[in-house]
Amino acid sequence: MSCKCNCNSGTELLKVDYNNMMSDILGDEGISQNELEVMSPVVENAFNDVKEGRGKGMMGWTDLPYVQDAICDEIIETAKGVRDWAESFVVLGIGGSALGPTAVFQALCHMRHNELSKDKRNAPKFYVEDNVDPERMYALLDVIDVEKTCFNIITKSGATSETMSQYLIIVDILKKAVGKDISKHIIATTDHEKGNLIKIAKEENLKTFYIEDSVGGRFSELTPVGLLPAAVLGIDIKGMLAGAAQMDKVCMESDIEKNPALMAATLQYIAMAKGKNISVMMPYADSLKFMADWYCQIWAESLGKNIDNAGNSVNYGQTPVKALGVTDQHSQVQLYVEGPFDKVVTFLSVEKFRKVLVIPHGCEDIPDVAFLGGHTMNELLQAEKEATEYALTKAKRMNHTIILPEVNANTVGQLLYFFEMKTAFAGALLDINTYNQPGVEEGKNATYALLGKNGYDVKKAELDNAPQKSSKYII
Amino acid sequence: MSCKCNCNSGTELLKVDYNNMMSDILGDEGISQNELEVMSPVVENAFNDVKEGRGKGMMGWTDLPYVQDAICDEIIETAKGVRDWAESFVVLGIGGSALGPTAVFQALCHMRHNELSKDKRNAPKFYVEDNVDPERMYALLDVIDVEKTCFNIITKSGATSETMSQYLIIVDILKKAVGKDISKHIIATTDHEKGNLIKIAKEENLKTFYIEDSVGGRFSELTPVGLLPAAVLGIDIKGMLAGAAQMDKVCMESDIEKNPALMAATLQYIAMAKGKNISVMMPYADSLKFMADWYCQIWAESLGKNIDNAGNSVNYGQTPVKALGVTDQHSQVQLYVEGPFDKVVTFLSVEKFRKVLVIPHGCEDIPDVAFLGGHTMNELLQAEKEATEYALTKAKRMNHTIILPEVNANTVGQLLYFFEMKTAFAGALLDINTYNQPGVEEGKNATYALLGKNGYDVKKAELDNAPQKSSKYII
Repeated sequence: MSCKCNCNSGTELLKVDYNNMMSDILGDEGISQNELEVMSPVVENAFNDVKEGRGKGMMGWTDLPYVQDAICDEIIETAKGVRDWAESFVVLGIGGSALGPTAVFQALCHMRHNELSKDKRNAPKFYVEDNVDPERMYALLDVIDVEKTCFNIITKSGATSETMSQYLIIVDILKKAVGKDISKHIIATTDHEKGNLIKIAKEENLKTFYIEDSVGGRFSELTPVGLLPAAVLGIDIKGMLAGAAQMDKVCMESDIEKNPALMAATLQYIAMAKGKNISVMMPYADSLKFMADWYCQIWAESLGKNIDNAGNSVNYGQTPVKALGVTDQHSQVQLYVEGPFDKVVTFLSVEKFRKVLVIPHGCEDIPDVAFLGGHTMNELLQAEKEATEYALTKAKRMNHTIILPEVNANTVGQLLYFFEMKTAFAGALLDINTYNQPGVEEGKNATYALLGKNGYDVKKAELDNAPQKSSKYII
Repeated sequence: MSCKCNCNSGTELLKVDYNNMMSDILGDEGISQNELEVMSPVVENAFNDVKEGRGKGMMGWTDLPYVQDAICDEIIETAKGVRDWAESFVVLGIGGSALGPTAVFQALCHMRHNELSKDKRNAPKFYVEDNVDPERMYALLDVIDVEKTCFNIITKSGATSETMSQYLIIVDILKKAVGKDISKHIIATTDHEKGNLIKIAKEENLKTFYIEDSVGGRFSELTPVGLLPAAVLGIDIKGMLAGAAQMDKVCMESDIEKNPALMAATLQYIAMAKGKNISVMMPYADSLKFMADWYCQIWAESLGKNIDNAGNSVNYGQTPVKALGVTDQHSQVQLYVEGPFDKVVTFLSVEKFRKVLVIPHGCEDIPDVAFLGGHTMNELLQAEKEATEYALTKAKRMNHTIILPEVNANTVGQLLYFFEMKTAFAGALLDINTYNQPGVEEGKNATYALLGKNGYDVKKAELDNAPQKSSKYII
């Protein structure tokens, strides 16, 4: 399939092979053509909801592939400056501010980037700090020289406790090390006007990039949240956006049979209705390992909802599970093949790796080993993927494969955007609010109460009055 | 709780707090004392099955805490030799041969070990290669000097295609670099007599450690599989075994209210019967992050079975999901709080971290940030754990907490053994074979067939005759 859009990239599009979801192959355990057809009015509605919602409300993410020429130039310019002096680049962020940068780094940089010599690395060392574990923070400080480090603090609200704690720690260390002016060392990515970080950024004279109000954290990888770290690493961010634009065109096809994201969402929707409450994302490529983590957030937070748009009480959601091929064949596949019929497996497959590694001949007197010689690792990996797919299918387990022609900036952009569109369609099919996360408020407020933040006395009293634990249930 | 065993360690035992599994707190969504009591005959049977099975069949792992004094001395001696000359130590293995070494490394070594200077590291750089991705293998070769690297090839059968492919590649490179005698550079961990690797080891004059026939891969972390890598890293392996021995004593308590592994297994068993087909393992400590991966294997492969001991067709299994606190509060907790009532969350909590990090005061004009100052990161992490626990409990979601007094060799040994015992009890409750993995054979054989291995012609024909995919289902 060649590129049909008018972008300047000729990269092939990813494909979705959903044969092993269908009753043609799975029999009664599969989805029939008829079931799909019965769904068409619902699918058409969902498609129209997404189409009409483009660029409005929290759907600003659909504009991202098209409107960022100027910002890309600014990001690339800033990144160039950072690359000139910084030995390390540290993202301080959590959730959507961390998962995207991590996934893209793993996909498009050397897999041992930080251990390469400076020459070979050709970019700063890269760290994404997305937790408040004191041991981990000390470990980072043991290996970076803050005077040669650029920190990118990312939080849309500027109120994220984890990220702002990291900020307070780093600023304190920086001011001790380099003096009052820390503006060279910190770049802030946040809201234009609202929140705390923009105020702080202005006070400290920090370089700032913005997240539009209309783009939520988990849909923000193609904003400066993801583009700046990628550019610092030397990744072709315009290529990523071009890939997203290519995918966007396909995802606006109203014919479900030509729209991979709409089809994938619909198949998952039907599968959920059949009791598949688990969605396994299993890349057969280490480079795509953390794409599974990124997917887990967008799928879990967007679809895990207890109320639908009509106000009905529901408890929707499909639990995403990350696995890695072939590694997890030796950990999870026993369960996937023999356990409950409760999951849909999505393989992520790559047609052409960036390296080919031939397995040398050897151990000729041991046939169990010798047969491997002469094959490539690539062939072995691909054969194992096909074999696992075969075993699952033979055991009548729903599975399908997203096939990337290769892993590059363009296809990574495609893949990110594909998952965003798939999630949007799935949310529309479920008729829920895809873009909120009310369920995390309770925990946030309880944290504030436990830490004695002003204004949380009522919540503190609620916690104090919660049912008491009994020591007999602690052993 | 002080140590009551007669081992020479005074380390406290881990505790299990299962208050939030019980109806006292969860109401109808919880498990009542009565439900537990009704189960007692079944629990007693399961307990006795495990007790009587100790040391027999595939339960050799129960002996491991007690019988390895001599082998530990040999491992420590070998490790000392490796530490003297090797700059890098690379484990070549997959599944049980990789997950344990990785988990223990993350738990007990510096979190940026490979990036530390040689002096601070005080051990070789450490790599676990558990995939056959060509890009990843090249990435490893870019950062190690094979002449200064010791490889530990681990496969019980000696027939694991992934590991033996890696072996062929590494041996070829080694022989080109150091000549015919590669015995200094490779240590083999495998079966005493059976399989290919022992033959190869003898031919190549390799130092060899053994995995007993009675210990399966996923129960092998406390054999030389895990002990050698740990010893090379300078970890107190006798302390790990002492912790396992301490835990073993507690797990042999017939009274379920004094036996945390039996209680945890029983609660999960009841939860499974109530439709909780998902088990989330959520450590609130980066050091325990990969314990969740190790747990995912032992829980998935052991319990995911399609036949019980009586030959009945079943499809048992609870899908393990790894999460990390607080990180995944910003990714998964929305789903856990509002989604289906289909999961049990297990928190892994640490009472005392090895570091304390104070969040400095700052941003005094911004209350949303300023309130954090003066607290420690440790307090923040702990408050967030308690808050998440509270939010889940308020939403009536089953959860419980395994509390480690601290993370050290002893408590890591305890934890590994606790999970092994919990798995054994759960398998006995389900009345299945906990120790086999027939479901992975299909994929293995299909791989052989696809790669043209001799003797797999029939399987190849079967694959060729499988239902054909249709191009209309590829978009």
